[in-house]
Amino acid sequence: MEYDIAIIGGGAAGVSAAINAKILQKKFIWFANGNLSKKLSQAELVKNYPGLPDVTGGELAWTLKNHYEGMNIEPCEKVVTGVYQVEGGFSLLAGNEAYDAKTVILCLGVEAAKPIDGEEEFVGRGISYCATCDGFLYKGKTIAVICTDKRFEHEIEYLCSLAEKVFVIPLYKGYEITAKNAEILLKAPKKFEGARKLERVVFKDGFKEVDGAFLLKGALSPAILMHGLKTENGHIFVNRDCSTNIAGAFAAGDCTGRPYQYAKAVGEGNIAVHSAVEFLGKKQG
Amino acid sequence: MEYDIAIIGGGAAGVSAAINAKILQKKFIWFANGNLSKKLSQAELVKNYPGLPDVTGGELAWTLKNHYEGMNIEPCEKVVTGVYQVEGGFSLLAGNEAYDAKTVILCLGVEAAKPIDGEEEFVGRGISYCATCDGFLYKGKTIAVICTDKRFEHEIEYLCSLAEKVFVIPLYKGYEITAKNAEILLKAPKKFEGARKLERVVFKDGFKEVDGAFLLKGALSPAILMHGLKTENGHIFVNRDCSTNIAGAFAAGDCTGRPYQYAKAVGEGNIAVHSAVEFLGKKQG
Repeated sequence: MEYDIAIIGGGAAGVSAAINAKILQKKFIWFANGNLSKKLSQAELVKNYPGLPDVTGGELAWTLKNHYEGMNIEPCEKVVTGVYQVEGGFSLLAGNEAYDAKTVILCLGVEAAKPIDGEEEFVGRGISYCATCDGFLYKGKTIAVICTDKRFEHEIEYLCSLAEKVFVIPLYKGYEITAKNAEILLKAPKKFEGARKLERVVFKDGFKEVDGAFLLKGALSPAILMHGLKTENGHIFVNRDCSTNIAGAFAAGDCTGRPYQYAKAVGEGNIAVHSAVEFLGKKQG
Repeated sequence: MEYDIAIIGGGAAGVSAAINAKILQKKFIWFANGNLSKKLSQAELVKNYPGLPDVTGGELAWTLKNHYEGMNIEPCEKVVTGVYQVEGGFSLLAGNEAYDAKTVILCLGVEAAKPIDGEEEFVGRGISYCATCDGFLYKGKTIAVICTDKRFEHEIEYLCSLAEKVFVIPLYKGYEITAKNAEILLKAPKKFEGARKLERVVFKDGFKEVDGAFLLKGALSPAILMHGLKTENGHIFVNRDCSTNIAGAFAAGDCTGRPYQYAKAVGEGNIAVHSAVEFLGKKQG
C-alpha cells in the first residue's frame, strides 16, 4: 500500500484531517479539488468558529489554506470517482489513476449526499463520473452531462468533442459552453430510466433519450463512491470514533450528519485521523 | 427554570458551547472559573487547531477569550459542586447558591476525571468540595484540605480560621499558606477511609486522622458531580449527539474521551449546544 491514509474532501473536515495526518507523520494523500469547498468559501459570516470571531467564509477558507500551506501540505486536485476495498486496504480511482491506501477518511460534505433517482442503479451501465475515463465510450453517441460547477466545463467541452449530441445541464450560474453540438437544458434531472442500461434522463416536463450520462461534480454520493458503505438518512453512518461500518474507512464533517458546522467538521477531522492512526497501529501490531 | 442551558467548564469545549448558546439566543449560564482552563493556557505549542497555526496555549486561550468577550459573554466564576435532577431539569449548586436550568452541558475536562479511592463513598459524610458551604461544620475540628490550584488558597485560609488543625496538601507549585494551624503535607493522598464516615486520609507512607476533608479543585469527577451519570473508563459516556444517559444532560470535550484535542473539544461543544436546543424544542412542542 502506497499511503497510510487517503483523505477525500476539501472542506473544513478535510483540512483538519490533512493537518493532523501531517503532524502525526503519516504518509497520506489528500484529494481536495481546487479551492476550499465551495460551500465554505461562499458562507457569508461565521460567528461560531472559536478563535476566529466574525470571519466571512472566504476569510476562513483563506485562513485554513494558509494553515495547511504553511505546513507544506499540497492537495491532489483530482476528483475521486470510486473507492474499492482491496487486500490490505483501499484502491481509489481518481482521473485515470489508481491510488492505494491502508485507510480512507471521507470528508465529502453534504452537497452530494442525495443521489438522483436511479443514479446508483445505472453506475457503470450508462452513468459515469469521469469524462477522461469513460468519454471514449460515447464517440458519435448522444449523452447528457449534468455539471455542478464551472470548474468542470473543460470536461464538458471534451465530451462534446467526442459525442455526436450533448445535452448539457449546468446546475450553476454563469455557464459558458461553446460547443455547437451542445444543447443547454436549464432544468434539473429528476430520474434516470432504462431497461438493462440507461436510456432516458427524465425531467419534470418530459425526457431525453441518451446513450449515457456524465455527472460532473466535486463529490459523489457516499454510497456510490464506496460500495457497501452504510448510510442513514443520506448521511454516512459513523461511530463515536468516526469509524464507518467498513474497517479502515472513517468519515468526518457534514457527510456524517448535522449540525453542519465548521467547528464540528474540524473536530471530526481530528478524531478520524486519530482513529485511523490507531487502526494502523493495531494492523501492524 | 431560570436558564435554558447551564454550561460547566472553561476549556475549549466550554467556550465553544457558550459561543453557540449565545448565537442561538438561549438563556444560558456558563460556569468557567477564572482564566481559561489551566491545561489550555499551559500548552506549549498547538499546531493542529485549524485556522490558527503554531499558537501557544496562552495565545489560543487569549484568542478564545477575545472571541467570547467580543460577544459580551461573561462567565460565572463559581465552582459547581453538584448537579441534581429536579422536576423540569437540573439544579446546580455553586458556592452557596442554586441555579436552575432545563439542560446542562458538562465540559469538565479530564484532569478531574479520576476520583481518589474512597472519595465518592464519603461525599456528604466527611468529604466536601466547598469551603463556604460546609466549612462551619468543622469548627474546632481536624481536617485535611487537598487543593489543586493556587486560586483556591483563600478558601484554605478560611478553613484554617475555623478548624483547630488543618493538614494542607497543595497539589500545585508555589503555594503560600500562612495560617499557623496549617501543616503542609507534600504528598498525594491515596485513599479515604472510615467506618460510617470519613476518619482517615491515607498516604503511601502512613495516614492522618481527620474529621473531614475538603477537595478544592476546578472540576469534580463527573460521577460525583452528577449522580447517576454513566461513565466508561473514567470518561462520560456520550452518544454521537453528545447526549449522556441522563435526558437533558450533554457532555463535550476531554471529559467524553480521547483524542484530547482542542479541535475535537470545540466540535463537541458545538454539537452539544445544538443537541440541547433540539431537546428544548421537543420539550416545548
